[in-house]
Order: sequence, then C-alpha cells, then structure tokens
Amino acid sequence: MSYNLLKGKRGIIFGALDENSIAWKTAERAHEEGAQIVLTNAPIAMRMGKINELAEKTGSEIIPADATSEEDLNNLIEKSMEILGGKLDFVLHSIGMSVNVRKGKHYTDQNYSFTEKGWDVSALSFHKVCQSLYKADAMNEWGSIVALTYMAAQRTFPDYNDMADNKAYLESIARSFGYFFGKDKKVRVNTISQSPTPTTAGKGVKGFDGFIAYADKMSPLGNATAAECADYTMTLFSDLTKKVTMQNLFHDGGFSNTGVSNEVIEKFEK
Amino acid sequence: MSYNLLKGKRGIIFGALDENSIAWKTAERAHEEGAQIVLTNAPIAMRMGKINELAEKTGSEIIPADATSEEDLNNLIEKSMEILGGKLDFVLHSIGMSVNVRKGKHYTDQNYSFTEKGWDVSALSFHKVCQSLYKADAMNEWGSIVALTYMAAQRTFPDYNDMADNKAYLESIARSFGYFFGKDKKVRVNTISQSPTPTTAGKGVKGFDGFIAYADKMSPLGNATAAECADYTMTLFSDLTKKVTMQNLFHDGGFSNTGVSNEVIEKFEK
Amino acid sequence: MSYNLLKGKRGIIFGALDENSIAWKTAERAHEEGAQIVLTNAPIAMRMGKINELAEKTGSEIIPADATSEEDLNNLIEKSMEILGGKLDFVLHSIGMSVNVRKGKHYTDQNYSFTEKGWDVSALSFHKVCQSLYKADAMNEWGSIVALTYMAAQRTFPDYNDMADNKAYLESIARSFGYFFGKDKKVRVNTISQSPTPTTAGKGVKGFDGFIAYADKMSPLGNATAAECADYTMTLFSDLTKKVTMQNLFHDGGFSNTGVSNEVIEKFEK
Amino acid sequence: MSYNLLKGKRGIIFGALDENSIAWKTAERAHEEGAQIVLTNAPIAMRMGKINELAEKTGSEIIPADATSEEDLNNLIEKSMEILGGKLDFVLHSIGMSVNVRKGKHYTDQNYSFTEKGWDVSALSFHKVCQSLYKADAMNEWGSIVALTYMAAQRTFPDYNDMADNKAYLESIARSFGYFFGKDKKVRVNTISQSPTPTTAGKGVKGFDGFIAYADKMSPLGNATAAECADYTMTLFSDLTKKVTMQNLFHDGGFSNTGVSNEVIEKFEK
Repeated sequence: MSYNLLKGKRGIIFGALDENSIAWKTAERAHEEGAQIVLTNAPIAMRMGKINELAEKTGSEIIPADATSEEDLNNLIEKSMEILGGKLDFVLHSIGMSVNVRKGKHYTDQNYSFTEKGWDVSALSFHKVCQSLYKADAMNEWGSIVALTYMAAQRTFPDYNDMADNKAYLESIARSFGYFFGKDKKVRVNTISQSPTPTTAGKGVKGFDGFIAYADKMSPLGNATAAECADYTMTLFSDLTKKVTMQNLFHDGGFSNTGVSNEVIEKFEK
Repeated sequence: MSYNLLKGKRGIIFGALDENSIAWKTAERAHEEGAQIVLTNAPIAMRMGKINELAEKTGSEIIPADATSEEDLNNLIEKSMEILGGKLDFVLHSIGMSVNVRKGKHYTDQNYSFTEKGWDVSALSFHKVCQSLYKADAMNEWGSIVALTYMAAQRTFPDYNDMADNKAYLESIARSFGYFFGKDKKVRVNTISQSPTPTTAGKGVKGFDGFIAYADKMSPLGNATAAECADYTMTLFSDLTKKVTMQNLFHDGGFSNTGVSNEVIEKFEK
Repeated sequence: MSYNLLKGKRGIIFGALDENSIAWKTAERAHEEGAQIVLTNAPIAMRMGKINELAEKTGSEIIPADATSEEDLNNLIEKSMEILGGKLDFVLHSIGMSVNVRKGKHYTDQNYSFTEKGWDVSALSFHKVCQSLYKADAMNEWGSIVALTYMAAQRTFPDYNDMADNKAYLESIARSFGYFFGKDKKVRVNTISQSPTPTTAGKGVKGFDGFIAYADKMSPLGNATAAECADYTMTLFSDLTKKVTMQNLFHDGGFSNTGVSNEVIEKFEK
Repeated sequence: MSYNLLKGKRGIIFGALDENSIAWKTAERAHEEGAQIVLTNAPIAMRMGKINELAEKTGSEIIPADATSEEDLNNLIEKSMEILGGKLDFVLHSIGMSVNVRKGKHYTDQNYSFTEKGWDVSALSFHKVCQSLYKADAMNEWGSIVALTYMAAQRTFPDYNDMADNKAYLESIARSFGYFFGKDKKVRVNTISQSPTPTTAGKGVKGFDGFIAYADKMSPLGNATAAECADYTMTLFSDLTKKVTMQNLFHDGGFSNTGVSNEVIEKFEK
C-alpha cells in the first residue's frame, strides 16, 4: 500500500543489514511511498548483509560509509546529493553495537576501550551524521532526521548493558542538534523508541526471548514489529509532522506507559 | 493536498466552533483524506459557532451532544454509526473550558463548583466519550482516539489556572483507557500536546499574546499552527501509527525540550 | 533514632488511620524529630481508626475535618495555629479513596457520581487544603507541604482504576500550587510517589498481593515500607530541602526506572 | 548547624576546587554532620585550587586521582578505606569539563577528539568510579553514591554544548549502575540536577549571566545555591533516604516544572 507520502523526496538510510532490519523495511516503505534513496552501511556490515538485494528492489545505489568517520560521511553526503539530484529530505540512523555485549563483558565489568568504541559507533556517530549534514547544508527546509533508540535510555534493562547509556547520549543529541537544526535550517530531528525487535542484531542480546515475551505481555497492543516501525517512520519523514522535533517517540504498543499488566501480575500470584 | 490516508474511514469530531478551531481544521483535513465524519458540539457552543458551514463543506451531518451527558453521548454514537454505515475508526476530543478562568477566579482562589464544572467538561468528558464508545463496542479494531491537551499538564503556566490540572487528568485517562482499549479492542488512545494556539477559545486566557510570543521564541521551529496540528492528527488516525498508544505527543516546534533559547537569554542580559 | 530535624517546627498530618498508615508513621517520626503536630482525619475514618492512641503517643491534639469541606479545613487550620502557637512549617496530605473501587466498578464501567466523589476526596481535597492554607497565610516561609501519590499517575496499573487519574490531578496541583506558594510565600509543595504499601487502605485493591510481589522483584532495593516513607518525609519537612519544589519524588527502591529485572524475565523464559 | 546525620559515616568527595564549588560546600557540610571524608581531585585541578585549605578545615586527607584512570581510582579507594578505617558510606561525583566549550567549538562544529575527552572526564568517569567501588566491594550496605548533573540532559540550553549529552550519559549510568548496585550491594545511586550555579567552572559558559538571571526568574523559589545543594546532598547521604535510588532529583527552586513565569511573559509583552 502506498499513499505517495514521500513523493519527490530524497533520503539516506543507514543500517540496512538484512530483511529483519528496521532500516531494511524502512527503505522498502520509503521506496513505495515515492522517495528516492541512497543506502549505506559500514563496509564490514555490508559484507555480511544482503544489501545489494535491497538496492535492486528499491532502485537505489549503495555508498559504503563508516559512520564514525567524518571523511566517509562527507563523501556519502556529497555523492548522495549528486546521485539523487538535490538536497536531502530525510535521513534514518539505525546503527548500534556494543563491544562489551559482544565480548560478554558485564555492565559492572566493562572494558573501557570497548565502551569507547561502542559509544562512538552507537551514539557519537549520530552527531557526526548530523554535523556533516549541517555543515554541508545538505538538508532541505522541513527535512526530517530520525534515529532509532530503545527505552533502556530511560529505564534499566539489565542485559542491555552499555547500550542504555549510548542510547541516552543518542537521544540527547537529537534534542541538542534538533535545536540548532530547527533554528538554523528548519529541519526536525527525532528519535523513535521502538519495542524490542527480533532483528539479527537484537537477537544477540542475552535473555532476549524471555524479555520479548515479557514486553509483549506488557504492551496492550503487543510489541511493535519492524514493518510497523517503518510505517511509523513514513509519517515522520512526511510533510504531516513538520512541527514535531526534539522528541523521543515511543512506538511500542503502549509498553512505556504500562506499569504492569494483568498477565504479568498473574505470574506473581500464588 | 491529499494522500487518501483515511480513505474509507469513519469518525466523530468533537469541538469544531469556527475556522480557528483545531477541530475545524481536523474535520477539513479528514474529509480531504477520504474520511466520512460526523460533527458534534455542545448545543450552546453550536449556537455561537458556524458549524453548519463546516458540515456543508465536508458533507457531514451534525449531531449536537453535551459531552458531559452519557445519554447524549450514547445517542451520538448510535446515530453516527447509522449515518456513517458502520463502526468508527477515529474520534477527536477537542473540548476544554475553565469556569474559574471565565469568571476571573485565580488559581489560589477557586470556586469549587466552578472547578467541578470545568473538570467535568474538560477532563471527565473524555472518559465519558471513551466509556460510551467502549460499551457500545463502537470502534473498529486498530481505531484511533485522540484528545487535545496542553503542556500545562507537565509544567506550570501561571495563567492556565485549573485547566492544567484538568489536562493532567485528561492525559491520565488516555493512558488508563488506552490500556483497556488496547487489550480488549485493539484500539489506540493518545493525546496531542499542541503549541499555544490562537483559537477563539485560547484567546480568552490572560497574558496570551506575551505568552504566545515567548513560546514562539522558545520553539526552534516556531509555534505549531492549528492547520499543522490537523495534519499531524491525520497521521495518528491513519494505519501508519497502529502501535502508538497511551502516549502524550508534543506537537510544538520543539518547545517542550528547549530549556532556553538565545532570544530569551538576550532579554535577561544587561 | 532522632536528629532533631524538625525541632521547633509545627505541622498538621492528615490521614493517620492505624499503625499501618504512612501518615501514622510520619506522625511518630515527626514527633521524634522534635515537631509539634496536630492530627486530623475525616470524622468517619476516625471512628474506625485508633487515632487517639497516636495522639497520646505523640502528645498531639486531634481535630476532625472532612478534607472536602472548606469550612472544616478553615477551622482546622485556625485551631491548629492556636494549639501549636504559631504558623505552620509542614503539612502532610495522605488521603485517597475510590468509590468505584469500593463498589467494584471497573475502570471501563464507572459510575460518574462515584468518580466525582473519589476525585473530590482524593485529588481536589489537596487543592482545598493548599487554598485554605494560602488564604489564611498559615504557612511560615520555607514551610513544606507534601502529598502522597502513586506511580499510576504516570503508567497504567489496571486495578488502580480511577485513582490513577486522581493521582495525576493531585500531582498537577502540587506543581500548580507550588508555583504560587513558592513565588508568594516561599513555601514548597511536593508529592512523594511511594512503592505499593500494604496499608489498611491499600489492601482493598484487587490483585494486590501479586502486584506487591511483582513490584518488590522489580525494585532493585525492594519495595519501600511505610516507615521508610516516613523517614524520607522527614527530609522534605526539614530545612535541608528548601529549594526542592513542584517535584514528584519517587520513593520506591528504584521501581520507577527499572524496565525489567532478571527475576521477572525468568518468569517468561520457557 | 548540625544534625549528626552522617555520624560515623565515611566518604569520598570528588571535585572540590575552591569555596565556590558545590563539592567544597558538600565536604564542609559532611564534616559538620559528623562524617569522615577523603578529598580527591585531578592533579592538575589541585594545583589551581585551594584544596589544602579545605582539608585542614575538615580534618581530611587528600588523595589526588585522575577520575578517568582506573588505576588512580583503585588506588584512591584502597587508600581511602585504610585512612577512614573501613568501607565507604557515601561518594560524591562532581566532575565535568567540555573541551569543546573551552576551545570555543560550537555544538555544530565539534572536534571529536575534544568530544571524546569531555565525555571521558564528565560522563564515563562516573562509570569508572562506580565500577571501581563495585569491584573492590568498597561500599557498605545502604551506602549512597551521588553525582551532580544539569537539566540540559533533558532540555536543550544552547550554550551548554556537548555537556548536555555528557550529562544524559551520566544520568543513564546512575540508573544502570543503580540497578546492579541495588540488587547486589544494597547501595543507592542518584543524580542531583542542580540550578545553574556560579561556580568557578560554571562561570566559563557563554551567556551565563543572562541565563542565570532567567533561571532565577523562572524558579518560583529562585535558583538553588551551592550551599543549599550541599544541604540537600546531606539528606541523600543520610539513612533517611534508603529507598531512593536510580533517580534524577531536581534541586532547582522549581525551574524544571515551571513552563513560564509572569516575569518572563512580561518581557515579551508589547
């Protein structure tokens, strides 16, 4: 289904790995809604993924970029504008990775060089993307920048490890850069705080299955899927949300404002 | 412009008074997006307003209803389903009035019969609307109920008076009823927290002009207009936001997450 | 143990019913910390309770007052200042009751005359207390007013029913009145959002045992007890928190910022 | 004035530079309340400061430590326990510095090696402090760890630069580590979000005078001072707040929940 919500719009989508990725679904939906897009991911992620398939499906070009590299980002933005034929209307940042999690280091036993690397990839990269776009004056007025985040930025989920702190930093960037992008360029910057989603990346987190079942039972509408997240992102890229900025928007079936559900209480009744 | 976002959908819109009303703009936009609607307002408000003009423009029928009356609401819902030919997909609650404000009673000198009346009209009416819809099983699955609110529910704006407390109650209803509407009917319930808007109703508030200028300077994208609010509401009524529920969504050009702006600081520099 | 934190201070404590009440523990602790207090409760609650025992233990007088009656409140405040020999330094509001809960009416099937009564007793009474104190100029500078609340004001707990909405209204009053009490009288107004507590009142809520076990497992430090809440309240009545105002303060062992705990996830693992 | 709130307690205070520092005032008050303390600061900060004066006044020893160095922190903790004669009851983290601010780099033109350094000093250092304490099992049960923060973590203050993002990360650490310190050691971890304070460090921020005047007018009780912050911290180190954890506590005269004040509106009226 298409509403032509993004007809004539141009954008960059970071982080599509395979068909489970939220970024993958978002690229598909943006294409359906009439946008032209450039796909990008880290060179190393691209080797593992199937991004060429997505490029073909959406008629997109791929420009590899390490989102922690200002040089790569500047190149990506410049090339994207050339390929797409003008300034950008939207950008999706869907990048996150904790080396501590990968290496099995507990939150209370971090290796700080791992922490620094994870922060750079997962959080600071969003600042770098915004700063590169800002300095290149690459966004059209009323453009929209979205980053994906998770509610661990507000509340502790014990296995989410240092990604919680990274997401808090990322959400802060959305507010801080949203102020300047708004004032100076009339561009909005928001984060979507998505239900736990069984993407290829998410699946690596310990205790993920039990947690996802809990989240589903705690969410009056159930967990939001990657495809639903892509739908929601279409509204934030569209012209219908021009005055929504600097917000962290929960897309989670109601989890964030549910204190407890009857199904959960029952597990604790004798 | 239309995207056919609400094609085939049916809804009720409360609170359209005149062309400055957010509800008025929302009705126009819902019509443009392909929805069939019923308009309603309190009999007394209808005498002052120009709702017939809106009905003509949008091909809608008008059913007067006092939103504090369960009987009126039950009648409204039953008739609406008859007229529209089926269950409802969306409802907008845009109702608010403080008798203390109208009568010039300060927040610290309330007349509690005024307070009770304002609470009933501005806050409890939303529960009554939801309860009537719920009991009549009048909402389609994945339907969307939206109420308009203001950030005074979170932070004090001294002239907003008891409407602050009413809006806090209203937002709580959205969460509480959102839980049950979600679990039992797969219906979402949200509030939009809109910039101060120079509607005919809003204009009555003391110090409104100075405040609206302040809010505009504090909002990186400027205050959101009534028309922009109507656009945003379209996204919440559409199928693209199915998993957004129990949320209070700021539509305010960034005001809510701006601590101060340079323009405001300058007023305090010597 | 005593630190003399309230030496020479005078206050009124609403809502002590029996030794399980938070208000009861607060009265005991305030007495230990050197304060002189007046106890009050609704005439009907006093018949059921054992407040005379508390009065004896703390050397306090009792003045019955219906907290929904401006006349009773005015009398209470005037008499309290006479008895205590001066203006007041602190007030505790610990009053809440839902008629819908008592009568077994579900949140989606409210009887609105019950709702109105519960709102008046549980929420508006706090405004009435503040307004009576404000108009009588009964608070000393840097005095402290505290009301007890529950996190249902932020997130839905399905069995908490309309008390959720009442608590949201109450917390809003603390902000709204806190603004004027601060500006005009240098008095602070806050709410404490306490863990679910097995008071005589709390025990009436359906599914309370399962919920309290869940909350305990979700709180890294365990649920906060009534006695601990009384301790915390001492700090808010003391001179050490003079610039804390208009806040809702979670006293809950960390529940509010815990997204999930390992113990809870385990219940959902196969 | 002293209440003996910290009688017999032992703690470490980071960040006392001179008598304007919040950490300096906190050290004085902790001493008055009966605690034994160790003072620490970065070697470079100590050369500029007058910490020896404070040590003499409070009968404390000084152990220099770079809070970004795990080795320094481990040494500090070990030595502190030796000097104080046992495990610790409280720790204050009052450390923050943005190289981008110092070097005049705007938020939209950051030098990322400056950003990384500021993050390490201002934010990650708090994790390092917590992790060193946790691994050394250096905290007594019911001990209390507090870090100072600022509301820029929630809302944008344009001149606060990357310190906003650092404070967001810091506050997230308090929640994340608070979970594990709570579960495993019965230790609480909180942040205090203090009014803008004219410390020697704070004074370096651009537009600080206009901002501090604005904040004062927006705070119903006026800005909180460093001395008042020290008072408040005493309550969080005391045994009266045992169940307060993972919280960010605003100590700001009501600023955080004030949407606007009449004094501010007046500046925008014609």
